[in-house]
Amino acid sequence: MNVDLGNALSAAASPGISRENLERLDEQVAAAHERIEAGIESREHGYAALALPEDVDTDAIEAAVEPFADSEAVLTVGIGGSALGAATIADALESDVEAHFLDNVDPEQVSELLADLPLDSTTVNVVSRSGTTAETLANFLVVRDAMARAGVDWTERTVVTTGESGNLRDLAETHDLPAIEVPDGVPGRFSALSTVGLVPAAIQGLDLDALLAGGRDVSLAGSLFESPAYAYGAAAYALDVRGASVNAMLPYAEALDTYAEWFAQLWAESLGKDGLGQAPARALGATDQHSQLQRYRAGPRDTMVTFVRPEERPDLSIPETDLEGLSYLSGTGLADLIDAEFEATEASLAAAGRPNVRIEIDRIDARSLGRLLYGMEAACILAGELYGIDTFVQPAVEWGKRATLGLLGGGDFEEAEAVAEKTTLVIE
Amino acid sequence: MNVDLGNALSAAASPGISRENLERLDEQVAAAHERIEAGIESREHGYAALALPEDVDTDAIEAAVEPFADSEAVLTVGIGGSALGAATIADALESDVEAHFLDNVDPEQVSELLADLPLDSTTVNVVSRSGTTAETLANFLVVRDAMARAGVDWTERTVVTTGESGNLRDLAETHDLPAIEVPDGVPGRFSALSTVGLVPAAIQGLDLDALLAGGRDVSLAGSLFESPAYAYGAAAYALDVRGASVNAMLPYAEALDTYAEWFAQLWAESLGKDGLGQAPARALGATDQHSQLQRYRAGPRDTMVTFVRPEERPDLSIPETDLEGLSYLSGTGLADLIDAEFEATEASLAAAGRPNVRIEIDRIDARSLGRLLYGMEAACILAGELYGIDTFVQPAVEWGKRATLGLLGGGDFEEAEAVAEKTTLVIE
Repeated sequence: MNVDLGNALSAAASPGISRENLERLDEQVAAAHERIEAGIESREHGYAALALPEDVDTDAIEAAVEPFADSEAVLTVGIGGSALGAATIADALESDVEAHFLDNVDPEQVSELLADLPLDSTTVNVVSRSGTTAETLANFLVVRDAMARAGVDWTERTVVTTGESGNLRDLAETHDLPAIEVPDGVPGRFSALSTVGLVPAAIQGLDLDALLAGGRDVSLAGSLFESPAYAYGAAAYALDVRGASVNAMLPYAEALDTYAEWFAQLWAESLGKDGLGQAPARALGATDQHSQLQRYRAGPRDTMVTFVRPEERPDLSIPETDLEGLSYLSGTGLADLIDAEFEATEASLAAAGRPNVRIEIDRIDARSLGRLLYGMEAACILAGELYGIDTFVQPAVEWGKRATLGLLGGGDFEEAEAVAEKTTLVIE
Repeated sequence: MNVDLGNALSAAASPGISRENLERLDEQVAAAHERIEAGIESREHGYAALALPEDVDTDAIEAAVEPFADSEAVLTVGIGGSALGAATIADALESDVEAHFLDNVDPEQVSELLADLPLDSTTVNVVSRSGTTAETLANFLVVRDAMARAGVDWTERTVVTTGESGNLRDLAETHDLPAIEVPDGVPGRFSALSTVGLVPAAIQGLDLDALLAGGRDVSLAGSLFESPAYAYGAAAYALDVRGASVNAMLPYAEALDTYAEWFAQLWAESLGKDGLGQAPARALGATDQHSQLQRYRAGPRDTMVTFVRPEERPDLSIPETDLEGLSYLSGTGLADLIDAEFEATEASLAAAGRPNVRIEIDRIDARSLGRLLYGMEAACILAGELYGIDTFVQPAVEWGKRATLGLLGGGDFEEAEAVAEKTTLVIE
């Protein structure tokens, strides 16, 4: 993974950062790096995520899922960080074992998915750190029931990833299910390279060691000029405080579509607090050139675009054609076309003086993906230090959880009463 | 479709708009409405989109696709507005005919899709207004070649939607393919309810008349207090100029996931110009409560959240459980749960004084979807009038097209030379 900040310099873009101020910022990066290193060393809450590639025992994970080696599909039941890391990995890497995710509580989606799945050869992977997440448990109750109705012994086809106590832990003990620990000190959105992301990847037969080796490849140093991950985090921070409050993540590969969603969670939930933080916007190249690009280039100067581009990819030749005006495509392939579109779009933003950053990965494989995920986590943690916030909490989601519980009769919560007091101005 | 602006009022949120200023704004809405009405009346470029429900001949579309009534799948080859409307409809409504989209030029995606599709029972629907879009034609050349290799006569399984001239029109004439006209004066992002969106919907056997009837249900009046569509467009504009430069589209239904993407194109490409326009952010309820919600509630006061919620949906009971602490879920269903989560999230944002707007549709069916799509198009056109911009052009995408063409050897363009002059600062 390398990061090119050229188009984020004030010589090229507005907002942009001067080389001089980037060097000034580097002193803060050095201080932040010390804080991060100490946090990793002591496996402190949150920072512990960056120790995962050293700590995770892939043999144990693979042994735990060995009974499910015959699976045609794996269905992960989890929400937010309990699903997105695994979904990102599954979307990026190829496997013969299909991966599905129940990360919402939409009755239509659940019904349709259950009707389509081969339940007798599907492994159900239930993930909740607390073991009490309402969405996840409700979905699991429905899935379990569907398996029972289909004559499948769900206790033979379920694996649980959870904490030391809670409903899911009890369930595992009662029914003697394989139960895998979530790691200590790793918030959900930083858990892709932990048991949370790796258990379903193992059931898919993916290369866990390569994913983690990718994480270990990322070197964190006391200077943004020596660490691509820090370079990205520092540039995003510097551009944000200069006005780029939107960060549009634009990977040029369909396989990284879910990665952009993962990034949105990482960025929004970690940095969106105390009135700070960039708004992540998910996009996809080349498709969104015909969509959001118009605003990136000609809207308010409030957006930085982050490109992610694999340097290599398999090609597919474009067949010869006698269609007039298309002869320039003959002899090229779709890879040439998407690469040209990427370069053209990057140059188009630069020509309009719009800040953008290019992240290059070698190719889309387990090792490069491990580098990318670990690198963006480190970038996010660095940015959190520069903002001076607590990157690892998400207090704003708690209010809504209490209100939901109150509305469903799960207790008395004043938040639920606020729902009834809504201001309305309905136009019909 | 109704729109509730209560939580966008300054009494409830900051930024927010006072009732008094909303009434003041309504005078501009009245003037804009006259302009829009006149545009519709004369079928002027862009405004003509709002005449589609009156003008489209569904019998002609259904007759044109009648030869493909046996299709197991329909593969739309198009990009941007040539795909997103149809994809939105296909994602929202149920059909036994699978819909697939090639709206990118990613060699891996194209290879995988072609390997999976039953080519001898797939209808290929190629869409390009100009008939010259490089991505679409390159993909079509690949698809045509794959069909030929599989022994399928592609000329029997291809339908073309295009303008009066261009490569695609020539192709249709040479091979005697059914060729359907794109409508005059309807930009791609406003074409969901035209032949562009309705041809694949017809192949899927969906109810075109109900979609268009939904469009006709939307009443546009000279006051935002009498028109939900205008109420939404005016509120988004008013909130933007007061600081809500991000518009997070948050439907509470998996079936509306692609709708949020469609909205992002509509909003960004129509309004993102002259340094103006909100940044659309795609999200999905309830999933994104565990992701982007943290920033919506506690980040900068630069975001409005747009909820879309179906008032009715099919339910799925949550089975009884003996799991401790979950008894409150017994006797409820997933629909109750997702609805409670919606109400809790809306109240959570209101309690934090963050502006949000609720759009309610009856249910997710063809008629309600027609209302929603038409309503949001009208909202967007109204907002464009209020900003005083040309809603129907997308000049910022042209630069990149010329650069791409130059890079691929399709002509001499100075834009391609700019690509080589990139400023670089690579951190490795």
